Amino acid sequence: MDKMQGETVRLDRASNRLLIVDQTRFPNEKVVLELQTLDEMVVAIQTLQVRGAPAIGVAAALGLSVLAGESRETDAEKFKAEFLKNADAIKRARPTAVNLAWAVGQMRDVLQENPDVPVPVLKELLYQKAQALHDADVAVCRAIGENGAPLLKTCKRVLTHCNAGRLATVKYGTALAPVYIAKEQGHSLSVYADETRPLLQGARLTAYELCEAGIETTVLCDNMASYVMGNGLVDAVLVGCDRVAANGDTANKIGTSGVAILAKYYHIPFYVCAPFSTIDLNTETGKDIPIEMRNGEEIRSLWYQKPMVPAAAKTLNPAFDITPHELVTAFITEKGVLQPEDFKTV
Amino acid sequence: MDKMQGETVRLDRASNRLLIVDQTRFPNEKVVLELQTLDEMVVAIQTLQVRGAPAIGVAAALGLSVLAGESRETDAEKFKAEFLKNADAIKRARPTAVNLAWAVGQMRDVLQENPDVPVPVLKELLYQKAQALHDADVAVCRAIGENGAPLLKTCKRVLTHCNAGRLATVKYGTALAPVYIAKEQGHSLSVYADETRPLLQGARLTAYELCEAGIETTVLCDNMASYVMGNGLVDAVLVGCDRVAANGDTANKIGTSGVAILAKYYHIPFYVCAPFSTIDLNTETGKDIPIEMRNGEEIRSLWYQKPMVPAAAKTLNPAFDITPHELVTAFITEKGVLQPEDFKTV
Repeated sequence: MDKMQGETVRLDRASNRLLIVDQTRFPNEKVVLELQTLDEMVVAIQTLQVRGAPAIGVAAALGLSVLAGESRETDAEKFKAEFLKNADAIKRARPTAVNLAWAVGQMRDVLQENPDVPVPVLKELLYQKAQALHDADVAVCRAIGENGAPLLKTCKRVLTHCNAGRLATVKYGTALAPVYIAKEQGHSLSVYADETRPLLQGARLTAYELCEAGIETTVLCDNMASYVMGNGLVDAVLVGCDRVAANGDTANKIGTSGVAILAKYYHIPFYVCAPFSTIDLNTETGKDIPIEMRNGEEIRSLWYQKPMVPAAAKTLNPAFDITPHELVTAFITEKGVLQPEDFKTV
Repeated sequence: MDKMQGETVRLDRASNRLLIVDQTRFPNEKVVLELQTLDEMVVAIQTLQVRGAPAIGVAAALGLSVLAGESRETDAEKFKAEFLKNADAIKRARPTAVNLAWAVGQMRDVLQENPDVPVPVLKELLYQKAQALHDADVAVCRAIGENGAPLLKTCKRVLTHCNAGRLATVKYGTALAPVYIAKEQGHSLSVYADETRPLLQGARLTAYELCEAGIETTVLCDNMASYVMGNGLVDAVLVGCDRVAANGDTANKIGTSGVAILAKYYHIPFYVCAPFSTIDLNTETGKDIPIEMRNGEEIRSLWYQKPMVPAAAKTLNPAFDITPHELVTAFITEKGVLQPEDFKTV
């Protein structure tokens, strides 16, 4: 991890390489990829070597800066044309990820805002912008952690679902940021990680990054959350989110709503951790958030040597669910610990 | 399934073989085993080729009858000694299963109750007893189905967890009996089957037997139950159970309590289906029921080509959980649809 300086995604200026921790190799191997070509970057995004909306966005911006640095064009117009072609290819690598398109747009704006600037200066401005997006992600996640840690002061054990840790961002993560910051402050929590079927992000990624950080971690099957809560083993639940509606309804990894209902039943606080940008005031309620349905083969046969579901049975594989706002104790953001009524005034 | 006549466990009198449907081969193969030796029977019980407490008990009784039939002893005392040796070996095959010890005890009683009877008559009496236990299991499960089916009259879709179907009994099952009987009565339900990590009994067994019976079945990851309930796709939940305490607290496969809490939240009836013998009036509440903790390798590496949990992480693998009685809408037994206050008077 030295080369990565504790980050998931970074630009190594000396070599002008995009460095990413390959997320497809966990938990059995930790491999750092050093990317320098457009093809390598597109493949990394498409095959989920880099995943997590914030991490993908930053990787795209840093990647575009690396490609700009590699360019041999000296004519500004040709340089810009090449840049826009690269930007388009990277944006198309995963067309549904909002952060990706947004980050690419931010990089494109650099060219528009600097029409009469020579190529070397453009390269430097693009680097500065990408690095700023990278640094902003770190700062936002750190602030989420600092705002969340005080809520965990009396907690010993938290439960989380899926991976909203540093592997999904540049550093710190969202849901796990309060755990990391609490540890910095001398308060060690232990974490129950739902394995999170069918893609096993909890078992593979959350457990990996927490163990690497020296945090005691116990992996559970998703259906065991009720057992640990009911036996008094969980003091708080921390999850990330993909989108929050204006009323506080929260879209996150499938299973999150179930965990929230269990937490309510067992009187355990349930916190949603997210950058404020995840709160979408243009979406009124959870009903307005479309849910991606994924291929049933993820349930039937992924990871296995043989299919585990008979061919005659159907499958249903929603990637996300909606947690009703009344189940969320609070939203931990970089702007503070919020209730839905705060969203419009912060 | 012809040879099995729709049953999971049976004795073929013509060949004097114990026939069982090998549960380790689902969902990819359906294999009928024909067992005639003690070793074969012990292995079948130990390796879960036959599983489900009722099915194990009946298999043990029928198996002892087969072994008695194979005996070449003509002296009654020698025959009894051989029988008791076999009975002991089968009972030890899985020492924790209550039904197994009980069924073996029932067979032993035949010898005690008939002290002065020649070997051929003893063989016939043992066969009659084993067959009676087999037939009683069928009758009890059918009665559970007949008592449960009327509760599902207005339902289209039910959800179940784990396998409490006919593969866990001789025929009909417990939780799935109402679905099979409803179908006989012309009312076809469709079933959502939780895959039931880590052993995948829902995906492998429940889905198999329902599809074989022509019942529309959709397999879900355990963490998707909230999604289908929240989207109005589930009209009732049916589960089996391993033990019910006098106050109605119910021990069943890990995850059952979570499903019950979700059902309560979404206002969906939650039914526990069980033979009345599963209700243990000597156990006051769920707190008095010990929970078996199983090997964490079932979470880490079972079914996979490589481990999916980092070695540094712990695991927790409780096999069962306790569903508080206030979450159970009713208990469907062969003696009727009961509330805990009925347990002592039925």
